[in-house]
Amino acid sequence: MTAIAHEKTTTTRDLYPSRTGGEYRLMPRRDPVVYGSPVAGPLDEATMTRYARDGYLHFPAFFSREEIAAVKEDLDRMRRDPGVRGREEAITEPDSGALRSLFAVHLDDCATGLLCHDPRIVRIARQLLGGAAYILQSRINYKPGFKGREFFWHSDFETWHVEDGLPRMRTLSCSISLTENTAVNGPLMLVPGSHKQFLSCAGVTPENNYKRSLKRQDLGVPDPGHLSRMIDRGGLTSATGPAGSVTFFDCNLMHGSGSNITPWPRSNVFLVFNSLENPLQAPFNGLRPRPEFLAHRENVDIPDP
Amino acid sequence: MTAIAHEKTTTTRDLYPSRTGGEYRLMPRRDPVVYGSPVAGPLDEATMTRYARDGYLHFPAFFSREEIAAVKEDLDRMRRDPGVRGREEAITEPDSGALRSLFAVHLDDCATGLLCHDPRIVRIARQLLGGAAYILQSRINYKPGFKGREFFWHSDFETWHVEDGLPRMRTLSCSISLTENTAVNGPLMLVPGSHKQFLSCAGVTPENNYKRSLKRQDLGVPDPGHLSRMIDRGGLTSATGPAGSVTFFDCNLMHGSGSNITPWPRSNVFLVFNSLENPLQAPFNGLRPRPEFLAHRENVDIPDP
Repeated sequence: MTAIAHEKTTTTRDLYPSRTGGEYRLMPRRDPVVYGSPVAGPLDEATMTRYARDGYLHFPAFFSREEIAAVKEDLDRMRRDPGVRGREEAITEPDSGALRSLFAVHLDDCATGLLCHDPRIVRIARQLLGGAAYILQSRINYKPGFKGREFFWHSDFETWHVEDGLPRMRTLSCSISLTENTAVNGPLMLVPGSHKQFLSCAGVTPENNYKRSLKRQDLGVPDPGHLSRMIDRGGLTSATGPAGSVTFFDCNLMHGSGSNITPWPRSNVFLVFNSLENPLQAPFNGLRPRPEFLAHRENVDIPDP
Repeated sequence: MTAIAHEKTTTTRDLYPSRTGGEYRLMPRRDPVVYGSPVAGPLDEATMTRYARDGYLHFPAFFSREEIAAVKEDLDRMRRDPGVRGREEAITEPDSGALRSLFAVHLDDCATGLLCHDPRIVRIARQLLGGAAYILQSRINYKPGFKGREFFWHSDFETWHVEDGLPRMRTLSCSISLTENTAVNGPLMLVPGSHKQFLSCAGVTPENNYKRSLKRQDLGVPDPGHLSRMIDRGGLTSATGPAGSVTFFDCNLMHGSGSNITPWPRSNVFLVFNSLENPLQAPFNGLRPRPEFLAHRENVDIPDP
């Protein structure tokens, strides 16, 4: 599959050039934020308008404690299993070798796999994306207490576009918290409204950049000047709430998280839904696509549950 | 002075042995927390009792915006002055060479020097320490936006005892914020009640450890087990508030701060008051004392203003 994808499959013009050796510059977003209508639900018109404006929706305690417990058990089991740590889809801590992230969990036959296809989640994703969608990426993350590292600000779309060949902004992320997120344990922070423009980044991507960028991203991150202006304009919001809270956010929304020196680990399930109308092409940097587990090219609709 | 101090000046027994090659272990605090009485003020009895219990007092907006403005101008001036960056008392960023901290600012003839001797601050320090006190350490800190690094949990007393020869716990810190501290820009976090026991640390201190520990402390920091139990017991509090807020805290209180990826820098003036009854001895690790600017051995009373 990778070999085929590496061929330029379409002739789509690059609407969002980035890391082409130029300077940082803001460009207009050429795609809608909301594609569906409020008619069918589950989101009403006001909520969809809010998503279009802010670029995210946060639902505290979306899932019950019981629903989350089974997924946490999965995570505990995965962290104990040396076989899991050895998988290509596993990202481990450089020092301890402990599991930090496991990708492609939506393909697993476990509570986590089921959660990825939860009808309440899928319906919202389909409504915002305007119909047929599939899971572009899924992962379960464990951010340890005491030594949880920061993740600097970034737009996921910038990376997915440049390194995976995601052509348009018809994609959204969904973060499901498995632990309480408080102001002090390094919660997800979002810059409301930052999704409305595209920040084309400086630099050029080296081959196999993902092996480094999954641990520490230094390409495709915003420069201080543009980032400051975005935050001046939109402010900052922290997605805090109990375990089971859910945050949907647009693929081009700037987000990041600080370090976590508290004893309280942070775990979540992270899902990316992409419209079937927006299939991956060859990466726009001209390099080989990243591995399938980072950006699934097999795009089979998750039917409306 | 350093030469004299290096001689063992007294025969005081080491009541708080740490980094002597053993394991982490909790030991009883053998010193009071509050030494003075509420009779003379400025703190009333309830406030002093709270300090004894929690190990800190936080006063939002203690200084006015105007009082703080002059000190911020000092800091801006210092950051522009290459002569300041070249001083031994200056700590600079490893990558950019920008000024991060300047020590011994209480000796400077500027607004910052005046602030260090502000009667409202000195009276509280003297009251908690029970009389004559002097400034053991002073500094002004600039923690930049976007790349403000975390400071892991630690008790200042542990370092001052082992590396500077501070014999007893009759010492307090006072942090005066020059910028707003919010939940998101890496505020000072404190573990209430953690000052009531002493955590003796594992490891042994190498010569000139301070050159490394001022950038990243890895000796004299608590282990996860003891730290978790302290936080389970006392919780965590963040010292947030507008510029001009003041936090007094006991020398043995566990504190730290997370990273700061927001655009908002954090600056503060940090003062340490030590009782004249508690003069520095030779360091308890048997090594040479750290430089004078880190722990002043000249102990002249700041008279009650």
